[in-house]
Amino acid sequence: MQFSDFGVKLSSHSGILQLMDDIARPLPDGIKPLPLGGGNPARVGKVEEAYRREMERLLSSGEDFENLLAHYDSPQGRVSFLEMAAAFFSSAYGWNITSENIALTNGSQSAMFYLFNLFCGKTGDRKQTILFPLMPEYIGYADQAIEEDCFVSIPARCEYYDDRTFKYVLDVSAVSAWLDGHPETGAIAVSRPTNPSGNVLTDDEISALSTLAHKHGIPLIIDNAYGLPFPNIIFTDDSRPVWNEDIVLSMSLSKIGLPSIRTGILIADKRIIRAVGNINAIAALATGSFGPALAHNLLASGELVRLAQDTVRPFYKAKADKTVEMIRRCFEGTQYYFHVIQGSIFCWLYLPQLKIPTLDFYAVLMKDGVITVPGEYFFFGSEEQKQGRPYPHPHYDKCLRLNYSGDEETVREGLEIIAARYREYSR
Amino acid sequence: MQFSDFGVKLSSHSGILQLMDDIARPLPDGIKPLPLGGGNPARVGKVEEAYRREMERLLSSGEDFENLLAHYDSPQGRVSFLEMAAAFFSSAYGWNITSENIALTNGSQSAMFYLFNLFCGKTGDRKQTILFPLMPEYIGYADQAIEEDCFVSIPARCEYYDDRTFKYVLDVSAVSAWLDGHPETGAIAVSRPTNPSGNVLTDDEISALSTLAHKHGIPLIIDNAYGLPFPNIIFTDDSRPVWNEDIVLSMSLSKIGLPSIRTGILIADKRIIRAVGNINAIAALATGSFGPALAHNLLASGELVRLAQDTVRPFYKAKADKTVEMIRRCFEGTQYYFHVIQGSIFCWLYLPQLKIPTLDFYAVLMKDGVITVPGEYFFFGSEEQKQGRPYPHPHYDKCLRLNYSGDEETVREGLEIIAARYREYSR
Repeated sequence: MQFSDFGVKLSSHSGILQLMDDIARPLPDGIKPLPLGGGNPARVGKVEEAYRREMERLLSSGEDFENLLAHYDSPQGRVSFLEMAAAFFSSAYGWNITSENIALTNGSQSAMFYLFNLFCGKTGDRKQTILFPLMPEYIGYADQAIEEDCFVSIPARCEYYDDRTFKYVLDVSAVSAWLDGHPETGAIAVSRPTNPSGNVLTDDEISALSTLAHKHGIPLIIDNAYGLPFPNIIFTDDSRPVWNEDIVLSMSLSKIGLPSIRTGILIADKRIIRAVGNINAIAALATGSFGPALAHNLLASGELVRLAQDTVRPFYKAKADKTVEMIRRCFEGTQYYFHVIQGSIFCWLYLPQLKIPTLDFYAVLMKDGVITVPGEYFFFGSEEQKQGRPYPHPHYDKCLRLNYSGDEETVREGLEIIAARYREYSR
Repeated sequence: MQFSDFGVKLSSHSGILQLMDDIARPLPDGIKPLPLGGGNPARVGKVEEAYRREMERLLSSGEDFENLLAHYDSPQGRVSFLEMAAAFFSSAYGWNITSENIALTNGSQSAMFYLFNLFCGKTGDRKQTILFPLMPEYIGYADQAIEEDCFVSIPARCEYYDDRTFKYVLDVSAVSAWLDGHPETGAIAVSRPTNPSGNVLTDDEISALSTLAHKHGIPLIIDNAYGLPFPNIIFTDDSRPVWNEDIVLSMSLSKIGLPSIRTGILIADKRIIRAVGNINAIAALATGSFGPALAHNLLASGELVRLAQDTVRPFYKAKADKTVEMIRRCFEGTQYYFHVIQGSIFCWLYLPQLKIPTLDFYAVLMKDGVITVPGEYFFFGSEEQKQGRPYPHPHYDKCLRLNYSGDEETVREGLEIIAARYREYSR
């Protein structure tokens, strides 16, 4: 029995696998788990109430439930949802789209897998790449290219502030120079808010990237899983929902209550949507119907966007504020920094005096039951790594990604242990 | 904007896409659709009642519904389901498996996409292939290999009977000779019951394939989406659920009530399951939770298997018998043949005197609202096709796949039109 090269590549130890395994599997007996690792969102009561109401409506409305179970949707997704969503986004944000600009997938992870491989790898007699212009980026992308060495990246510049925070900043001229020098770039990709750092690219930065994408005739893929208009886990005031024909906008219902139902929503140029529908037919036959069925009325009526703005956003904002307060208290007296939490459900901690790599520090913390994600996994796409050297960024092996969405006690206990161990493992 | 070779290959016109599009999109006004095309199963009342009961139980049992919504499962699938399923299959059929031998995917189409690419394509310095030993095979496989020209096949031998039926028969010695001469074969794959023909490989044929797989150290992948122990759409008496360590058994909940929820169940060697879990983490993050949650109690209690045997199987058997009766009446006086309906929800009609390819005949029928699937799509993996010639099987452009699971009136009207047009287009 021999796995193909694709099989070996995709089935080797990957960061995303470790992370998802950590989420789902119990720790040994006797250790209290403090899960600050994976991307599981918190439960938000009002959101759950809305989905419960929709499910009860399906069950009580004639044979709606049975009809929902009984039929495959189209590979592009549930047609009634696509039409409603096109009308909603057009009307709410003035986007010039129809249902032909929207596709659903079994989660936005699948959407990104399709998109990356649609635009990278062997392309005639050259090899196209995906450019990540602001590394660190989401761990879940790192292994998604089917071919080797298709991802390239630009290390994030960093602005440090007086209050022990910092912010990653796009180096627009470096991106521009890269694109001029690398015509084999097939697409640009960012997450916004950025997973893992909680950075939110400004509207100006997005506009600059979109302009560069247009100039080079390539798409700008924006992973909007934490963004606008839902789930709206964005705490800056200068961001707005954005789409244009150069942008592929990837949205998700996972962070607004439905992680277990796997519903990704793509908005893009019709040619891209058609291609995604085709790939989905081949790789997955159809997209599940429950997500769009439960969300249909909520999106159409504006309730989903209102829930995001009035409930989900304040819920996480309060948690983020509390987390910042706890970090300052726990790490008092150490050399610690963290990225401004502008959005997402993560805090990105930078521990410059750590005398072991965070990959090892992660294992130390795990013994105490504290599950985190070591920063190394979020840096990929460098020439140096191909040659076995570390990613060229001072934060490379000095950061931890912490999910702050758990209950306050868990986050506090976790932070206390991390701070204690940091004191122990500081140089 | 330029798609990669992968993107071009997977997003080109594919049979499975046409089929899924036909299912989901409405015909032009004024034409009554007679959908005999796609693989959508029928609604079966007792099965629907069971899922409704399970959903109502989830909603009425504390926060079970909310907990179900709120958490990602592991990439290998819902852990509680894996453990229950391992216990169930071990106990019911004596299979030597644990939860490490089972993985869930977002539908069995995704499972097959993972499996094929795990075992075919570039593998070190050679290129592995998947052998389909009994062509015609399922349209949905045809485009699933990421690399070109990885599928090879052996044309089915055919036994004709006096009553205008025929049956495809495995040429065991041809398979054996192929494997001896082609050490680059990475896996053998069959569907059982076979989609499109409704053939059911006998236990002896499966045993022969399994022995050959073992001898060559490669897996035998069996797509059991219509098979045993559920949905049990098998009308022969000599078949039984089968698994051993050389077999990768792919099961599905789609044909027992849940097509829209996308739940595939794989049983295989632990190394394969681990690899599938890893690929699933990268390509899809996690598998949806609703399918396993709704089916958990039903499988554990034996109710799912009983529903399959006592309700689903007789339901389709009656439809199959009725369909055979209608075919004989409608096609009376023409040269028509059909494959013995031994299982699945399809009838495979062979029209030897058709003077146009079935690809064209399909379009003729579509104008009358009759949606079918032309046979050409089910023949793939030949040297001849690479050179632009037809697949070397006398049935290649003379067959239609008909889904007989619709209501009787629809199937009857469809068959009457097909027969009338066949008379018109016979040589």
